[in-house]
Amino acid sequence: MAQSMITAAEAERMIFDQVQEFPMHEVLLEQAFGGVLREEVLADRDYPPADRATMDGIAISHSAWKKGLRKFLIEGMQQAGKAPLGLKDLHSCFEITTGALLPDLCDCVIPVEEFEITEGQAVLKNFDQEIKPRQNVHGAGNDYKKNKVLLKSGVVLNPVRIAIAAAVGQAKIKVSQKPKIAVIGTGDELVEIDQKVKPYQARRSNAYAVQAALNRHGYFQVERFHVRDDKTQLRQSLKRLIKDFDVLILSGGVSMGKFDFVPEILIELKVRVVFHKVKQRPGMPFWFGLTEQQKPVFALPGNPVSTKVCTYRYVLPYLLVASGVKQHVQEQVALADAYESTGELTCFFPVRLEFSRDVGSVAKFVSYSGSGNYAALADSDGFVELGQGQNVFENGQQVKFYRW
Amino acid sequence: MAQSMITAAEAERMIFDQVQEFPMHEVLLEQAFGGVLREEVLADRDYPPADRATMDGIAISHSAWKKGLRKFLIEGMQQAGKAPLGLKDLHSCFEITTGALLPDLCDCVIPVEEFEITEGQAVLKNFDQEIKPRQNVHGAGNDYKKNKVLLKSGVVLNPVRIAIAAAVGQAKIKVSQKPKIAVIGTGDELVEIDQKVKPYQARRSNAYAVQAALNRHGYFQVERFHVRDDKTQLRQSLKRLIKDFDVLILSGGVSMGKFDFVPEILIELKVRVVFHKVKQRPGMPFWFGLTEQQKPVFALPGNPVSTKVCTYRYVLPYLLVASGVKQHVQEQVALADAYESTGELTCFFPVRLEFSRDVGSVAKFVSYSGSGNYAALADSDGFVELGQGQNVFENGQQVKFYRW
Repeated sequence: MAQSMITAAEAERMIFDQVQEFPMHEVLLEQAFGGVLREEVLADRDYPPADRATMDGIAISHSAWKKGLRKFLIEGMQQAGKAPLGLKDLHSCFEITTGALLPDLCDCVIPVEEFEITEGQAVLKNFDQEIKPRQNVHGAGNDYKKNKVLLKSGVVLNPVRIAIAAAVGQAKIKVSQKPKIAVIGTGDELVEIDQKVKPYQARRSNAYAVQAALNRHGYFQVERFHVRDDKTQLRQSLKRLIKDFDVLILSGGVSMGKFDFVPEILIELKVRVVFHKVKQRPGMPFWFGLTEQQKPVFALPGNPVSTKVCTYRYVLPYLLVASGVKQHVQEQVALADAYESTGELTCFFPVRLEFSRDVGSVAKFVSYSGSGNYAALADSDGFVELGQGQNVFENGQQVKFYRW
Repeated sequence: MAQSMITAAEAERMIFDQVQEFPMHEVLLEQAFGGVLREEVLADRDYPPADRATMDGIAISHSAWKKGLRKFLIEGMQQAGKAPLGLKDLHSCFEITTGALLPDLCDCVIPVEEFEITEGQAVLKNFDQEIKPRQNVHGAGNDYKKNKVLLKSGVVLNPVRIAIAAAVGQAKIKVSQKPKIAVIGTGDELVEIDQKVKPYQARRSNAYAVQAALNRHGYFQVERFHVRDDKTQLRQSLKRLIKDFDVLILSGGVSMGKFDFVPEILIELKVRVVFHKVKQRPGMPFWFGLTEQQKPVFALPGNPVSTKVCTYRYVLPYLLVASGVKQHVQEQVALADAYESTGELTCFFPVRLEFSRDVGSVAKFVSYSGSGNYAALADSDGFVELGQGQNVFENGQQVKFYRW
């Protein structure tokens, strides 16, 4: 490959440039939690649809109070969820519950603490206290008008937005389909986690980590595979997986080692390489390409930290964009310690968040011995990105933060 | 009830004081993602189990280089995942791949970039370059020793910890059981979301929001119910739900209104009240109690914002503690604007996070018309807590932040 190595920012841009949006489908609202909305959600009516009480109390006509009345005969109870009644006599009142529509001719609500009921009459405790017209009334159309766009296409359906969709009767809703994702480990030195392991072997942990990260972000159609460092097996397995899955995530086999066949086999299978190698540490041998059907293939370095970092830094953002998310601002955090770099590579460092009363959260570097010791990451909260092109990172500087 | 109203901090403490830990069970690792670990995960062996190469290259005996040798006959290939070979002649070498164990008698690795292969010999490019003993070797036991505690009981199994558990062969793992949770809406004015709605009716959005919040935090055994404001029906339904579920979350029916029967019926059903009413806005009528079997019953105010706030502020933290989480630090954020309060109540405000280059994330208040207009929360990211007992909150002050 003659191309010179690209930066992490360029890699991200090149990945985003290749995004093909996942198709949308209509699902029941309760199946849409955490999904990405692919239509506008409109108000189905003015809200509130009519004047409502915001307190428990009595509803009166303000004109009666203005005329000097301080006792009101109770004509009945206006309950939430019942059709509005109407005053027979302008000088009387209705008891009313929070959320109930105002009875006809009533235009204000006096809270329950401010009167006593004696012999069927509500008597104000303080005759001098001012009662304002429309007090404790939530006016018709005050929150929004019919057909107002309440939710825009491209937002993630968090619990608040789910409630809004429910409130306007969106029992079915259009969201992005979740992709079927294959997570494929490679490496002859790796055995399954329930098997005995020889000194020259290790267990397959990467695919578990990637699957867990995907699950945590709402992608549950994830299957794990392991393929040996054998060209024939790689070719056969990948050929099938490219057909059956929407997104492929490989781990291992992308360095320049003697048994790193992944790029070669992917190219044989007509996966077009978009880039190979990124100016970053860890994760330099990261390879990215697209199948003939434009499905993304992320071939991540097999080093355990590299696999995790690349999953969070590239794969999850791809999935968000492909799901139609319009706005995504990466979380940021202040560095607890300064850092000096050659500026040639983007560096990803595991960090632990600590809280300081003045500055808020700060990120402390968690040291780990390069590639190997992922066990040191047990207490890390995620990693920060120290961008290429900058030499000195001061303590307190805000940097991008990716939470495990 | 003679008790005086408690603060939000006291409510939290009283809730935590009542926590009964959920039972634990053993599950397959892939079913443990996001769960709370209830055992220690120990190293099953020293790691690395033996000296390993950290680069692709050749493995030699340093003594040979020290004697002046700069060409090494290649005896073979030491591949990762294969039992270690051994030098026949101290002056020769093995090709070696990253992660492979060092062949016997070898003690350093020269990277592939630093030699050329000619006629079966690896010839160093730079005869003067120093080769250090044990260079590019990941020493046996360097990361950790057998039986070291790699994961402590009480941590959440995020993707990094899942990978650690996989790496030490923990194919099955003990985690907290997820509770069965009933989310129960009340209110005769509420109709199902797929039904036509009259002007004096609204749709049942609260239970959807609570269910979505629970799902988002990994609780999937959640069922929604709706009960009418009718004592007989409430009694019957709650009696059954108390038996069938581990946690009950009610929404509505806890104010002092004429049809707010929830506390009365719960007490009839021998649910012991721990508190009713908290000095907070919104959410003052929040009621909390325990069944005879010590199951928690959260009876939240029915106002849509109150229900959501109390779910995040009290229910989710309860579930974390009951799952055995040992450390949980609530996220914090800086206020974008100052705020003045009487200091009598803890105030919860919806906020949108904005990013400033100097300060990082700041929280901007999202205005909504008191109880009603939850549609205004569509673009909020969560809410902040402005604690009781403080009058002035400066801009830039760090406060607790709960993310939707």
